[in-house]
Amino acid sequence: MLLPAQIIQKKRDGNALTEEEIRFFINGFTSGELPDYQMSAMAMAICFQGMNFNETMWLTRAMIASGRIVEWKRQAGLFYADKHSTGGIGDKTSLIIAPLVACCGVKVPMISGRGLGPTGGTLDKLESISGFNVNLPLDKFQQITDKVGCCMIGQTAEIAPADKKLYALRDVTATVSCLQLIVGSIMCKKLAENVDGLVLDVKWGSGAFMRTREKSAELARAMVEVGKRYGKKVCALQTDMNQPLGQQIGNALEVRECIEIMNGSAQADDLLEVTLALSAEMLLMAGVAKNVADARQMLQKKLASGEALRKFAEMIAAQGGDAKVCDDVKRLPVAKQMKPIPAPKSGFVQAIECDQIGYAVIALGGGRKVSADKIDFAVGFEQPKKIGDTVTAGEPLMIMHYNDAARALEAEHMVQHAYTIGDKPVTARLPLIVQKIE
Amino acid sequence: MLLPAQIIQKKRDGNALTEEEIRFFINGFTSGELPDYQMSAMAMAICFQGMNFNETMWLTRAMIASGRIVEWKRQAGLFYADKHSTGGIGDKTSLIIAPLVACCGVKVPMISGRGLGPTGGTLDKLESISGFNVNLPLDKFQQITDKVGCCMIGQTAEIAPADKKLYALRDVTATVSCLQLIVGSIMCKKLAENVDGLVLDVKWGSGAFMRTREKSAELARAMVEVGKRYGKKVCALQTDMNQPLGQQIGNALEVRECIEIMNGSAQADDLLEVTLALSAEMLLMAGVAKNVADARQMLQKKLASGEALRKFAEMIAAQGGDAKVCDDVKRLPVAKQMKPIPAPKSGFVQAIECDQIGYAVIALGGGRKVSADKIDFAVGFEQPKKIGDTVTAGEPLMIMHYNDAARALEAEHMVQHAYTIGDKPVTARLPLIVQKIE
Repeated sequence: MLLPAQIIQKKRDGNALTEEEIRFFINGFTSGELPDYQMSAMAMAICFQGMNFNETMWLTRAMIASGRIVEWKRQAGLFYADKHSTGGIGDKTSLIIAPLVACCGVKVPMISGRGLGPTGGTLDKLESISGFNVNLPLDKFQQITDKVGCCMIGQTAEIAPADKKLYALRDVTATVSCLQLIVGSIMCKKLAENVDGLVLDVKWGSGAFMRTREKSAELARAMVEVGKRYGKKVCALQTDMNQPLGQQIGNALEVRECIEIMNGSAQADDLLEVTLALSAEMLLMAGVAKNVADARQMLQKKLASGEALRKFAEMIAAQGGDAKVCDDVKRLPVAKQMKPIPAPKSGFVQAIECDQIGYAVIALGGGRKVSADKIDFAVGFEQPKKIGDTVTAGEPLMIMHYNDAARALEAEHMVQHAYTIGDKPVTARLPLIVQKIE
Repeated sequence: MLLPAQIIQKKRDGNALTEEEIRFFINGFTSGELPDYQMSAMAMAICFQGMNFNETMWLTRAMIASGRIVEWKRQAGLFYADKHSTGGIGDKTSLIIAPLVACCGVKVPMISGRGLGPTGGTLDKLESISGFNVNLPLDKFQQITDKVGCCMIGQTAEIAPADKKLYALRDVTATVSCLQLIVGSIMCKKLAENVDGLVLDVKWGSGAFMRTREKSAELARAMVEVGKRYGKKVCALQTDMNQPLGQQIGNALEVRECIEIMNGSAQADDLLEVTLALSAEMLLMAGVAKNVADARQMLQKKLASGEALRKFAEMIAAQGGDAKVCDDVKRLPVAKQMKPIPAPKSGFVQAIECDQIGYAVIALGGGRKVSADKIDFAVGFEQPKKIGDTVTAGEPLMIMHYNDAARALEAEHMVQHAYTIGDKPVTARLPLIVQKIE
C-alpha cells in the first residue's frame, strides 16, 4: 500500500488509481484520518489529470458506501423516478416536474440542493413557501413519496456523507468544476436515493458550470454511463443555459411562476418545453406512456386540469408548508420595491452573461455569498429580455424586485453589463434542447 | 480582494497572481488563518500551471518576510559566501567546502538541510560526529562564522518560518518537485541568510530531483535570476547526479571520506573536482582569487597543507563536536558488518538508478522513512562501481556497511536492481560539470 502522498503523486503524474487507493482516500477523508490538505491536493490533481471511467465508478461507489442506501417498496406498478439538473439561472423545472409526474402515477422522490455559485437552488426556492420543511428524515421522506407521490428534501447526513464533506472542501479549494468529481458527487447521491429511473438535465452555456456544449455532453455521457452500470434507467437531455429559463428569476418569484404555469395564468414557452421534455422521459422510463407524443399529451392534460397544481399543494401541506400559496401567490414573500432596469442602448440582444444574472440575484440578497448568509426570498428579476429580442435604449431589460437601494444599484449594473446589445438581428437561435444522451 | 478559493481558481486556470495575492496566501498560511487545505490545493495548482518570474520573486519575498534576516558585519575585506546543492547521493561537498573556503579568508555561514527523499542531508552527516550541535541560535551561528570562518547549522525557527511550514505540507501532498516552489524554498532561506555571494550546485540525473538536464538548467537559471534581483553575487554549476559522487555513501562514511580527502589519504576524483569547482567560484566572487586557475591553486594548497582539515576540526570543536575525528576517523560510528554486494552479471555499467542507492541507504536505516525515524549513522556503501566500469558476475558492485541482516538483504537487492549492466563498452561519458549558469 502506498502512502497518501505517493497516491497523490501517482494521480499528479497522470496515472490511474486503483479501487483500493480511491477507497482508502475517501474512507480516510470521511473518517477524518486522512487530513483535508491531502484530499484537496488530490482533488486539484484530479482537476488537471482527470480520471478514467473505472476510477469515476470507484469514486462514486466509495461515496455511496459512506452512507445509507434508501430502500423503496418493490411492488408491481411502482416506479420511482427522479430528475436532476446540473443547475442554471431561472431553472425551476423541478417544482413543476415533481407534482406533474407524480400525477401520472410515477413516484418522484427528489433530494435537491441549495444555490451554488450563481445558480439557484430548489431547496431555497421551496423555503420561500412559509413553513415548508426540506429537512425531513429519510423515513418521513419515503412515507410522503409513497403517500403523496412526490417529496422534495435536502441531502441528509445519512446519504453519502463523504460527498457532503468533499463538496464543502471542493467549494473552498477551486475544485468544483472538475468533471469526474461532479459525476461522482451527483451520481452517488442519486444512486444512494436508489430510484429506478433518473433523467438528467445537463445544461451548457454562460449560466451553467459547463460553458461549452462539448464539456456538457461529456459530463452527460459520463453520468448516464455510471447510472447504467448500476442497473438504472437513465438518460440525459442537454439543454441551453445561455439565458435565464422562463420569465422569473429569484426564489419566491420562481415559485410564483411555477404555480402560474400550473394554473394556466402564465406563459413561458422555454420553461414549459424543458419541463415537458424532462417529464416525458420520466413517463417513458416508468412505462406509463408508450412514446413521447403520448407522454406529452398526458402531461398537458394534468396541467390543464389543475391536477398538477393540486398535487403540488398536497406535497406542500405534507411537508408543513402553506399550501394556500397555490391559490393565492400573494402569500409568497413580496419585495417592497420594483424597478425596470433600462437598456443602456438600442439594438438586438446578442448574448447574455447568464451567470452574472445569477450573481445579481445574490447581490440583491437572494442568494448566499458565504454559507451562513440568510436569503431574502422576495428579491429577483422578471420578464428578462432574451437573446434575439429587440431592445430600445431606456426601455427595460428586466424588472428588478428589491428591498435595499444600495444592493439594487449594484445588481442593476451587473444586469446591464451582462447584456451584449448589437445592431445585427440574431438569425441563428441556439436550440433549447440540444440532444438526448442515453 | 478575491476570496482564497478565487485566488486558487485564478492559478488553476493558468493566470498570474499579483504580489498582493501571493502575500495574502503566504501570510495567511503562516499565521494559520488560511487553512492548510487551501495552501495544498494552491501548491498543486502551481505544480501544473507554474509561476512566472515575478510570481516566483514575490513568493520568495513573502517567505523571507515571514522571518528574520541575518545581519552580518559590514566591513572592508569581509565577504560572506554560501554554497547550496539541490541534493544528491554521496553529495558531501559542503563538509569540505566550508572549511576549505574559510581557510582562504572568505566567511562561510551555511544553513543546511536534512536528508530528503533519497538524498542525504548535511545535518545528518554532521550529527554522525559525536556531540556536534546543528541547532544553534542565530547569534551563536554568527559568532562562530565570524570567529572560526565557517559554521554549519539547520534552519532555525527565525529563518523563513513560512517556508518551513510550506515545505512540511508539500512533503505530504506530492508538491515537492514543482520548480518555482523549489526556487522559492531554497532562495528565501539563502536570502534571509543574507550572504554576499551564493554558489549553487544544481544537479541533474537519476539521483537528483530534476531528472533532465533541461529541467535542472531551468531551475538553475531561475534561482540565479532571483538571487541577482536581490543584489547578490550568484552563479550555478550544473553537475551530474546520474551516479553517486565520491567513494562513500552514508552519513559517517561520508564524513570519513571528507576527512580523508582533506588529510590526503583518500582519492575521489569526481568529488574533488566538484568541490574545487564550487569553491573556486566562491573565491572569485569574494575577490580572493583573480581567476579559476589561481583559485584552484590556492585551494589545492590549503588542502595539501592540512589547513582545511584543521579548520574543519576548529569548526567541529566550536559546535560542540568531537574534533578528534579529524585525526582518527575510527572515532566515527562504524557498522558491525560489511559485505560486498555481488554483481548479478558481467559486463559494463551502462546506467545506475541513483535514487535507488539513496533509498537503499534508507533501507539500511541510514535515512528516515518518516520524520520521526532515528538514523543509524554507521551504515551505507563504499567503493561503488561507476558508469562505464567493467564488472564481473559475483564481484562487488559496492561494499555494504550494515547492522541488521534483514535490512541488508533488502538493500542488497535494491542496489543490484539499480545497476544496468550490458555488453557494450560505454564510450560517451556524461560531463561531471555540465555548465556554469550566471
